[in-house]
Formats: sequence, C-alpha cells, structure tokens
Amino acid sequence: MARKEGKKEASAEAEPGDKVQVECASGKYCGILLPRKQESPFLALKLGSGYNIGIRKEAITAISILEKASAQFRKELKEEKKSSSPAGKVSLLACGGTIANRVDYRTGAVHPAVSAEELLESLPMQTRGTVQPRMLFSLPSEDMSPAHWAELAKAAAESIKGGAEGVVITHGTDTMHYTSAALSFMLQNLPCPVVLTGSQRSSDRGSSDAELNLSCAIAAAKSDLSGVFICMHENLSDESCALLFGPKARKMHTTRRDAFRPINSLPAARVDAASLSVEKISPNCQPRKKESKLALDTRMNTNVALQYIYPGLKPSAIASLAGYDGVVLAGMGLGHLPVNLSGDKLAMPILKEVAQLVNSGIPVVLASQCIYGRVDMDVYTNGRVLKEAGIIGNLCDMTPETAYVKLMWVLGREKRMGEVKKLMETSIAGEISERSPIAPY
Amino acid sequence: MARKEGKKEASAEAEPGDKVQVECASGKYCGILLPRKQESPFLALKLGSGYNIGIRKEAITAISILEKASAQFRKELKEEKKSSSPAGKVSLLACGGTIANRVDYRTGAVHPAVSAEELLESLPMQTRGTVQPRMLFSLPSEDMSPAHWAELAKAAAESIKGGAEGVVITHGTDTMHYTSAALSFMLQNLPCPVVLTGSQRSSDRGSSDAELNLSCAIAAAKSDLSGVFICMHENLSDESCALLFGPKARKMHTTRRDAFRPINSLPAARVDAASLSVEKISPNCQPRKKESKLALDTRMNTNVALQYIYPGLKPSAIASLAGYDGVVLAGMGLGHLPVNLSGDKLAMPILKEVAQLVNSGIPVVLASQCIYGRVDMDVYTNGRVLKEAGIIGNLCDMTPETAYVKLMWVLGREKRMGEVKKLMETSIAGEISERSPIAPY
Repeated sequence: MARKEGKKEASAEAEPGDKVQVECASGKYCGILLPRKQESPFLALKLGSGYNIGIRKEAITAISILEKASAQFRKELKEEKKSSSPAGKVSLLACGGTIANRVDYRTGAVHPAVSAEELLESLPMQTRGTVQPRMLFSLPSEDMSPAHWAELAKAAAESIKGGAEGVVITHGTDTMHYTSAALSFMLQNLPCPVVLTGSQRSSDRGSSDAELNLSCAIAAAKSDLSGVFICMHENLSDESCALLFGPKARKMHTTRRDAFRPINSLPAARVDAASLSVEKISPNCQPRKKESKLALDTRMNTNVALQYIYPGLKPSAIASLAGYDGVVLAGMGLGHLPVNLSGDKLAMPILKEVAQLVNSGIPVVLASQCIYGRVDMDVYTNGRVLKEAGIIGNLCDMTPETAYVKLMWVLGREKRMGEVKKLMETSIAGEISERSPIAPY
Repeated sequence: MARKEGKKEASAEAEPGDKVQVECASGKYCGILLPRKQESPFLALKLGSGYNIGIRKEAITAISILEKASAQFRKELKEEKKSSSPAGKVSLLACGGTIANRVDYRTGAVHPAVSAEELLESLPMQTRGTVQPRMLFSLPSEDMSPAHWAELAKAAAESIKGGAEGVVITHGTDTMHYTSAALSFMLQNLPCPVVLTGSQRSSDRGSSDAELNLSCAIAAAKSDLSGVFICMHENLSDESCALLFGPKARKMHTTRRDAFRPINSLPAARVDAASLSVEKISPNCQPRKKESKLALDTRMNTNVALQYIYPGLKPSAIASLAGYDGVVLAGMGLGHLPVNLSGDKLAMPILKEVAQLVNSGIPVVLASQCIYGRVDMDVYTNGRVLKEAGIIGNLCDMTPETAYVKLMWVLGREKRMGEVKKLMETSIAGEISERSPIAPY
C-alpha cells in the first residue's frame, strides 16, 4: 500500500531506487527516484516511459512510496558511490536538449535544465568515474546558433589541450547534425574523438535512450579514433549505438531512437551497448593521432542563406537573396533548378536570378534535396547550363545542411570566388566521398 | 566484322534489333536499334548502359552494323506488330523527363523530346496494344510548375470521362512527388488509378529502368485500385515496382532506381515485373469505384512559400515572407523553430516574426525537415509556444512538400484562417495517417 506523507517526512524516507508518486502544482508523476546530491534543488525521477525528469523540491506537495527498492539495488548504489572519482579523462560538455531536461510548470511540457553532474548520476559508476563534466549551455538544440558552435569548439579544444583523452558533447537532437558538421570544420587535426550524443523523446516507447547513448558516447570518446562523430541508437534495439561521421549524418526521423542516419557514408563504427567495445565499420576511420596539433578555427561568415528549391518558387525569392554573402540552393534531383530552356509558357524559371547572384560576386552552391546520392550537373542539359552560369555544384555527396555550414566556414576565411569554389569542392573534413557506398539508404 | 556504310544504305540495311554504331556531329553511339515508325525523324538506340536515346536522322553521318539481331528476336518483333491496336483503354499522358529524351548536340547532355507514341514502341506489344498515348508536355520535371499540374489534372479527368480504365503519366522524377501530391488533391473521388512513372538515369548501372517502370505503371493503371500513385522500382533488382500513395512519397536519392520511397506509409501495392500482377500491401488501398463521380478541382493559390528552418536563419528572412498568402515552414525535429524562451544571448529566435505573419492573417503551417516521423508541438515547451502563437502544426506525418502543395490547394478555395487550419489538419487525400506504420524508414 502507498503511504501518503508530508514533503519533509517523505524526502527523509524515500530512497534512491524506490518507486514513488510525486505530487506538485503541475500534476502527479510516478517513477523511480534517482540518486542526487543532497544539496540539489531538484528531485530526479525515472518515469514509466523510461524518461527522466527533474522536479523542483520546493514545488512538491506530497511524495508517496509505491514500492521500496530491493536490497540488491541499494547495495549496488552504495558501491557505485565508493568508487566515484572527481577527476576524469573524458571531458563531458553539456549543451542541453532532451538528454537533460525538466518539466515546465507553466505548460506541462519539458525543457532542458539539469546540470552536467546530474547527467552523470544516471550512469553506471564504471562509466561515470572517468568523466569530467562541464555545463556549457542549457538549450533545446533548435535555439543553438552558429555562435554556439564556436563556443562549443573552443570548449572542446580547451578540454583536449587540458589533457582530455576524448570529448563527449550532450546536445539536443534537432540540430545535432548541423553542430557536428560545424565542429568537423572548426576542429581540425583532432588527436582524439569528439562525440556528440543526445536522446530522442519517444513517449510511445518503453524506455529512454539517454543513458545508453551517453554510455556508448563515453566509450567512443575513449576509443582509438579521431574526428567528430554523432553517437546515437543504431536501430530500435538497445544493443548498440552507431558512430556517424560528423559531416555525413542527418536526423531523418522526428521520434525514433535511430533517427540519425549516415548519409552517403557507412557508419564510422558501432559501439556495443553491453561490452562498450567499439568496432570500426568504415575504412575512412582515422585512429588517434597523439602527435597531431589540433587546429581550432571558429571563423564563420554567418551571412549565408540555405534556399529550398520547389515547383512554383518565385524568381523574386531568389532575387531577394542578393544581400547574402553566400547562398546554398537545395536543388532537385541531381542538382536541378527550373531553367526553362524549352521556353515553355507555364514554366517559372529562376536561372536569370541565380546568374545575377553569381555575377554580383555571391558564391551560389548547389546541393540536392533528395539528401541521398550525388549531385551531378553534367548529365542533363539543364545542369550544364547551371554550371555555365557559374554555380558551384561539384559538391558530390554533401548534404544541403553540411554544404550550408561549410559555406559559412569557407567564407569566414576566403572571399575570392575561385578559392571559395575550390574549397567547397574539396573534402576538408570527410564531407565529400570519392564514391558513396551503396549500403545504407 | 563491322561494316561501315553510307547513311542511306545503312538505314536500308540496319534493322530493329541489330547492334549498330551511329556516327553524328556529337560523337559515336553504340547500341541496339529500336523499332520506330518509318516517318519518325529520329532513330532510336538502346545504349549499352540500357539507356535509350533518340538521334535525329538528318544529323547521322554513318551507321555501322556491329551485330545482326537473332532470327528469334525478329520473329517476336513481327508478332508484336500484328497484334497492335490503335485504340486503347489506358490513357498515357506524356510530360517529358528522363523516360523520354534525346541527346543535345550542343552539350552532349540529354533532354526530353520523344513522343508518347515513341515511348510505347519500347514496350512489349501485349502492354502496348491497350494504351492510348497523348503528349502533353516535353519538359524536364524541374521545369514543371503548379500551372502544369492543373493541365495534367484536366487531361487525366478528360481521359477518365472519355472512358479510360486508368491513366498513366510519364514524368521526370525530380518533382514527381510534388505533382503526385497535387493530383491527389485536384482529382478527388477517382473511380480508377492515376499512375505516375518515370525513369532514373543511372549511367553507372547496366540497364535503364524506363521500360520496366512503364510496363508496371500500365499494369497498375488497369488494376483494381483507385487514387493517385507513383510507380517506380521497388529496389535495385528488376523484379518489381512499388506503387506509392501520391501524397506520401518522396524522391530520396539522386540516382538509384529505387529513389522513390514511401514516407510514413506502407507502399500501396507491389507490381510484379514478370507477371505484371498487382499485390496490395497497404490496408489503405481503395478499390475501383465505378459509380464514383470524379471531382476535378484545379484551383490553387500559388502565392505560397516553403521555408526551410536552420540554425543561423535570419529573422528578417521570416519577416520577408509577409507578401505571401500562406507559408509552410520545414521546421526541425518534432516541428521546432528557434524561439529562445531562455533568453540566451547567442540565440537567433524567429518567434516574433512568425507571430507577426500569423497576426497579419497569413496561415503559417509547420512540417518537419526530418521527413520521416510525425510533427508534435505538444512535447516540448518551444512547440507549445509555437502552437499558442497560432501556427498550424497538427499536420501529423505530412511531408513538407505535400504540405506546401496542399496549402496552395486549400488557399485556392478558402481564405478564413479557421477553415484553412481545419482543412490542413484533416486528411483529404490520404496525406495524413492516423498512425504511421513502423515498417519503411
């Protein structure tokens, strides 16, 4: 039977591992009480959905214990505490996102709040002991801007220069692939792995993916790799995470745990969730480079637009991009735009407006909204005409999102059109594959 | 041994089925000579890549026969001719695209040209005999605009009213999914199938997909289904085509033959390439409806923008959409935009600008750039704030492209914000699923 008690008594009695019901202004929450530091103003609860929430202690009106934790569970918790070590070798940079969040009392929805230390508390101690957490931001990733990427790159570089053997970044998932692309360009000659991870809220599924993703990301950060990666569930099982190359990944699903997919690339590696061993998959994996001198370059020209191309797009929409310093077009198919070479009366060509942008000195870069596959302007007459107009289109198999991030980075250090073209069409951080593997699509 | 001969002699001697080398101003082409009407100004050649091209007879300087066709092949061709029938039951509307093209002598690239009749000539006669072709446009699909969709819908309706048992539309692949979505809204209460098909040029693969796709599309048009579909290769084999629901498909690869994927949906059906039988897969398939009174409604308000959302997007880019009558935002994740509720200094929120659009009476509709999965504005605080701002976001699992086409169609008949919201959030042509199937992703 559940006992109902006053707040003071309950917090003295309910122990980590107990199944409890917490009442506060925004409603009732049932779940397993998670271990937290005494001084934390939040109480942490693992909900039946597997999802962790933090509830401000002040706001709690009642706690009922529904079921006490087993003796075995309490013993394990004690042993974990003993082996805790404050100094760690992997640097954990926390940015916010679903992996770290709490209930909003105004709306009942969730938003990021918990600290990096609190994030670690949900992990098994053997993982936790070697990690040094640092809270950078507390933002849902849709609020992260190019300026945050620079801060993040600087923090990662500091950690590595300070002796970290690897870096884990916890991040919201919505824009994680933009950030991973940006870090791939900003952090070059990486001696070790920089691994982004997060979690997908999926209220329709039984368990949260946060802990597994974080455990695997920490294992990946300690592995014999170098470069920027995304580490998220490989599939719907809890057996492994996929490690994806920073500039060659994309969030392809709104809710699934395996939302992140390698795009025109094999996964870099697989992290086994049980053994935490890292198995390389792609031949493009680079080992650790102890002697590598990390090059941090966060300069970006953020006056760049990413424009989606679609039937009915007005020529004036292209003309209105004249104020930007660079434009990425997410074209159709192999990299096509409405050009109307046949003089059709109903067509709405935008070739003239694109040519005007190019002629005024604005680099216009072409990727494909298909997402998968390579851009090729040589197959069709329309494509050749675009090439003649000076569009930069030899991006091969770069995603529109990576092309956008890269153009900002390239324009941060180079203004000459010819050099911009050369840099855009040359792989700098593995964003262009010589040949896309057939496998994952 | 190959014999080299003058143009007149060669055309008298080279017969359909022969392997020939054709020389013209733009170069030499080797391939199998395809049957054509004597009066056609083009000679048709199936290249070693499997790709068909048309070469203007006038431009040919020499033809060499490399290998004569077998007696068996010539016999089959003759039998096909005998069974030919000019009046057919399936209407074939040709729009152009890779499925119908010729070499451009100026650039060496290809663009659409051949007639609907010539398209049929590449098919086995049992398929060909029951098809009535009509050339509507000769355009690469990137040049097709909303005005073309209306013409196409009218032509399909005419065919059906004229007694066609089904309609096949040959179309370029780049924008086929925009067109299939548009036709799904413009042609309602369809008594029979309207099937779009095309082909993917894939110079790196051994055979063209044009004939198989067209054969399967014709079979699908004769099947016991109603509605608008896309019929393209199901996978890399030549064993089957997938029939995809018009508003729930997308070109997901630039070159693969199975570029079209069902999005948040099962395929409607599978067409077996050998038997041309149609096997239903989705429970949402509708049978033929003989008594159904086709409703043609091509009205569209084309003053609609589709805006991609990304980190670093300038608020001014949203403000500049004030001149449109409707806006679709391809948001991030579950349907998120930068809103910066936490007041972060580096964030670039666009909430104010979006709210201004809504407050000025412009319907703003939210889809997800993830493509797969459902939009849900209730999970996170940021989403709830967007909902409060009046954004139409209950589109469930509609793709951004379908949402864009649908908003144009809805605004073509309704201006009241409340009604627009209701129509956008209600499934009209199967574009919204109650629940997305887990299978294809």
